[in-house]
Amino acid sequence: PSAIAVLTSGGDSPGMNPAIRGVVRAALHRGIKVFGINKGYSGLIIGDLEEMNSASVTNIVQRGGTILKSDRCEAFKDPAVRHQAAEVLKEKGIDTLVVIGGDGSLTGAHYLTLENDIRVIGLPGTIDNDIYGTDDTIGFDTAVNTALEAIDKIRDTALSHESLFLVEVMGRNSGFIATHVGIACGAEMIVIPEYEVKVDAISSQLASNREQGKGSSGIIVVAEGPKPGLTYDLAKQLKNHGQQPKVCILGHIQRGGIPSGHDRILASCLGASAVDYLCAGYNDIMIGVRRGKIVDTPLAQVIEKSKELDEALFQRALLLHK
Amino acid sequence: PSAIAVLTSGGDSPGMNPAIRGVVRAALHRGIKVFGINKGYSGLIIGDLEEMNSASVTNIVQRGGTILKSDRCEAFKDPAVRHQAAEVLKEKGIDTLVVIGGDGSLTGAHYLTLENDIRVIGLPGTIDNDIYGTDDTIGFDTAVNTALEAIDKIRDTALSHESLFLVEVMGRNSGFIATHVGIACGAEMIVIPEYEVKVDAISSQLASNREQGKGSSGIIVVAEGPKPGLTYDLAKQLKNHGQQPKVCILGHIQRGGIPSGHDRILASCLGASAVDYLCAGYNDIMIGVRRGKIVDTPLAQVIEKSKELDEALFQRALLLHK
Amino acid sequence: PSAIAVLTSGGDSPGMNPAIRGVVRAALHRGIKVFGINKGYSGLIIGDLEEMNSASVTNIVQRGGTILKSDRCEAFKDPAVRHQAAEVLKEKGIDTLVVIGGDGSLTGAHYLTLENDIRVIGLPGTIDNDIYGTDDTIGFDTAVNTALEAIDKIRDTALSHESLFLVEVMGRNSGFIATHVGIACGAEMIVIPEYEVKVDAISSQLASNREQGKGSSGIIVVAEGPKPGLTYDLAKQLKNHGQQPKVCILGHIQRGGIPSGHDRILASCLGASAVDYLCAGYNDIMIGVRRGKIVDTPLAQVIEKSKELDEALFQRALLLHK
Amino acid sequence: PSAIAVLTSGGDSPGMNPAIRGVVRAALHRGIKVFGINKGYSGLIIGDLEEMNSASVTNIVQRGGTILKSDRCEAFKDPAVRHQAAEVLKEKGIDTLVVIGGDGSLTGAHYLTLENDIRVIGLPGTIDNDIYGTDDTIGFDTAVNTALEAIDKIRDTALSHESLFLVEVMGRNSGFIATHVGIACGAEMIVIPEYEVKVDAISSQLASNREQGKGSSGIIVVAEGPKPGLTYDLAKQLKNHGQQPKVCILGHIQRGGIPSGHDRILASCLGASAVDYLCAGYNDIMIGVRRGKIVDTPLAQVIEKSKELDEALFQRALLLHK
Repeated sequence: PSAIAVLTSGGDSPGMNPAIRGVVRAALHRGIKVFGINKGYSGLIIGDLEEMNSASVTNIVQRGGTILKSDRCEAFKDPAVRHQAAEVLKEKGIDTLVVIGGDGSLTGAHYLTLENDIRVIGLPGTIDNDIYGTDDTIGFDTAVNTALEAIDKIRDTALSHESLFLVEVMGRNSGFIATHVGIACGAEMIVIPEYEVKVDAISSQLASNREQGKGSSGIIVVAEGPKPGLTYDLAKQLKNHGQQPKVCILGHIQRGGIPSGHDRILASCLGASAVDYLCAGYNDIMIGVRRGKIVDTPLAQVIEKSKELDEALFQRALLLHK
Repeated sequence: PSAIAVLTSGGDSPGMNPAIRGVVRAALHRGIKVFGINKGYSGLIIGDLEEMNSASVTNIVQRGGTILKSDRCEAFKDPAVRHQAAEVLKEKGIDTLVVIGGDGSLTGAHYLTLENDIRVIGLPGTIDNDIYGTDDTIGFDTAVNTALEAIDKIRDTALSHESLFLVEVMGRNSGFIATHVGIACGAEMIVIPEYEVKVDAISSQLASNREQGKGSSGIIVVAEGPKPGLTYDLAKQLKNHGQQPKVCILGHIQRGGIPSGHDRILASCLGASAVDYLCAGYNDIMIGVRRGKIVDTPLAQVIEKSKELDEALFQRALLLHK
Repeated sequence: PSAIAVLTSGGDSPGMNPAIRGVVRAALHRGIKVFGINKGYSGLIIGDLEEMNSASVTNIVQRGGTILKSDRCEAFKDPAVRHQAAEVLKEKGIDTLVVIGGDGSLTGAHYLTLENDIRVIGLPGTIDNDIYGTDDTIGFDTAVNTALEAIDKIRDTALSHESLFLVEVMGRNSGFIATHVGIACGAEMIVIPEYEVKVDAISSQLASNREQGKGSSGIIVVAEGPKPGLTYDLAKQLKNHGQQPKVCILGHIQRGGIPSGHDRILASCLGASAVDYLCAGYNDIMIGVRRGKIVDTPLAQVIEKSKELDEALFQRALLLHK
Repeated sequence: PSAIAVLTSGGDSPGMNPAIRGVVRAALHRGIKVFGINKGYSGLIIGDLEEMNSASVTNIVQRGGTILKSDRCEAFKDPAVRHQAAEVLKEKGIDTLVVIGGDGSLTGAHYLTLENDIRVIGLPGTIDNDIYGTDDTIGFDTAVNTALEAIDKIRDTALSHESLFLVEVMGRNSGFIATHVGIACGAEMIVIPEYEVKVDAISSQLASNREQGKGSSGIIVVAEGPKPGLTYDLAKQLKNHGQQPKVCILGHIQRGGIPSGHDRILASCLGASAVDYLCAGYNDIMIGVRRGKIVDTPLAQVIEKSKELDEALFQRALLLHK
């Protein structure tokens, strides 16, 4: 590539900073100029970018959020706007864009390269882990740990009061966070979009716990699901079954925070690999990790297909709570 | 005292365990028998208690919640029930009760001793720090730190997206947590029950920040206030003023968690001091800390009077955000 | 199996508790009796074990250390002692043993089943990640995160004082922790047993950093290596090259602590899988994870072969610091 | 004051950043120009300073270390050098200096104002809490919490292996950190410079623990003391008494890290108060906190007198471990 630009887009996720650093340092190592774009596609459109050097990414590996800032850019759905963005890049002598973000952000990258003479590589940056073509996304591990820290605290109160908590974690369309958090916190039940859960099943699980001498307290982890209010609905249903659940919505605390070691390493390697793939001539792909190996997947597939939750893991979680 | 019983009551707070340990170890040190009551006043009424020794409180100093469990006991508002509780204690040869809890719990203790031949000492165990007669309560410092950890994460997202967050912290009647958290997180504004805040003031603070080159992001810390929904109301008003705030309710994560060093030391000292005061013949008091010294206050005063927020601190917080 | 016994052995690692829970709950789910042995092989020899039920492992998933306690048992190297251990198990009607531990512990398990009519399954429980047959060990992820938290703090001081720190992490024979920690903390250099590092190379890296405007501070991560004092030796050599390094030995803080989400899930799955393999008739194997899948490896191989560090990851780490 | 300069000096401590922010924002609020000096007295001498505005201190309240960097400056002990520093300040139109640091740093400030026409105010910034004239120093609370987090992890290993650990915390001349950490972690013994401890006493405490069913594990917290190696000496003595202690030196991890809520509030208030005192005409004082109130103490006293450890707290700690 003549020069690479990098941006972060969509919801921020912990590890975006080491990913940026990976791209920048690997590019410089090969003697390629690299530019940072501020505020995602919104900044790209208006040419808000500047050249980065090795010192630009010093001491960011451990910072949450993204030093390049991020944005959800509706305008980028318009081909004319994407064309404008391509012109901005060409004017600066940049022929390549690395996009770190989730599904929507990678869709924008795909159409940018389809319609314009700009090469793109995507990196999966989202806490939700709901991206086809990679077993893991930048930020997922940290988000799971953040949710766990919160639930460990709630567990103290649940045990002290022998009470039942519904804890809502992020995940609109998928139960990745909920399943991992649920198995790791020893949740009494996990409620996710992929599987129907009967309120009866929850009640009988709680009754069985009491009988086995495990006390009356409980944590039920609930994925937020496609429409708001799901967790409050479930609370109502449980009240009708004689339970007295309290609701906690973990919300935005799951996005930020110091990235975990796992996410720093994943992000560093994906960022550096993006440059390797670019230099090997690849285009219109996402770099991810599958079965422990770095792999590429065409962005067209990433966008079309949806990743399946590992049902065996979910079933294992339910078994272990018994 | 012939023998001491100890219970935790009301919402759990981090540090209740080292407080229990302080009472138990100090009592044993003086050769006094000590009993632990399960589940607060509810457990006391039904005689759910057992003798504790030094090993009973080993390795609990760092645990959140309360090993004795806690409860909110409506029945204890009835003098007949309190009489029954006193009989339970006397039957076991116990003439003294140490109650660790908040306002309601200390009220129960006061009436118990007024009406019955049982001596009581209260310890302020609540995250809210809203108890007259003490500058500090067991759990307040930890709750402030827990809220801060959450807000530091939200700050990452706020900065990355240049967005505005309303973060609701605990505090029904008082702004202690909100004020301390607000000053410590560098909040752009603090909203507490004690002072009226105009939405205009928030808007102009945010505008002033932008003008000074401090960016468009912001954190507003809001005490939950007397009725639920306050934070959502404020969000609506801000929307009408052209802001786009997101709401985070920190909720129950503020209660649990590993107690901070400060709370472990405070709780240990108050627990041990309770025994000192008992041996010196005191009754119907709460042990607290004022201006760095351990002091006692009659429970009657603790219940009647309300603690004032330090207005100077609040004003200082507002000044420092400018 | 007629009944399963489980023990933890060698240095404790975070995640041993969820591993125990996985074994216990999965065994009970299949109607198999399960016993917990106290203090590793030492406890086994003297018959210090008791039956566990579902409540025995309640609320342990988030606890560091091991509720079964652990030990390094020299006596177990003696075949006569192993025979005695087998007799203890048979007497209780137990025909199967699950051992959670590192290399030495798994060696003991292998010889126990070779010489006696006891079936064994091993689980890799060590922070060092130096076990053949698995990409990951129970406790490694947590240890990396713990070391990172410490180094993030040291980084604050290094930056504030523009000083150089040598931070020693665990790893006698292998650089797994050092390499992962090094890449994740943005170390200026990583020193591990597998690769020789020249003091000149460190000095020139630090000089290059200064020239690029990255400041004079630095963190060098050093694996402890086969003999104590390595890090102090390196410090002396650096002093001779005009550097003024300070030494930090992280030591035992890397062993304990609340297990990370990753380790809780890994341990839970390996624990439950051990029971699956036992029920499928396997013996004399270790259950691990390779390329994201749960796999078994004969204990004979686990003991004989040594796991290689991923050199590509190490080289990537060095590149990213430039 | 015409204009204020602020610097941080000596070992960094968590909370120096909110202290700087307090000084800067409070000065600007009163319309006073404020300058930040880089690298302590070393930077002052060479005129390495620049004007700060409100945005200069945005988003630093939660950062460890000091954005102004710090240094130990031997040269500043020379009156000629101090004179030169005064000239630098006057040239820039600055008549006032705020120094955030420990004993040595405050000594420099005192002589600077004695000999030159520069006003100075000191703020106690050190993790050691060993400064006369204040009950608390900026960074002490965080350092105690950091040490506790480490020891809580070591406790997991100690309990799992029933082993004895000597944990060395900072404190050359004073046992403040050791005493607070010791009481808060439930240490079996605390060894500090102020009180002689007999090895016999440790052994009998450990024996007593075993007898009471509290197990064989133990944590002994040791202040580093005036000369290095104290903790290793103690380990040797304990070995001669039949114990098998392991040694952990917590070291530099105690300095850095995200400041606690307590330290952020303390630092913010002291920083802002420094400006209040300056505007009220004070000079040659340190601002501290005593019995919960902000107070000033002449620097001459701060330097001459030494702060006494609260013996009652130390004795209480010992009692509670029994």
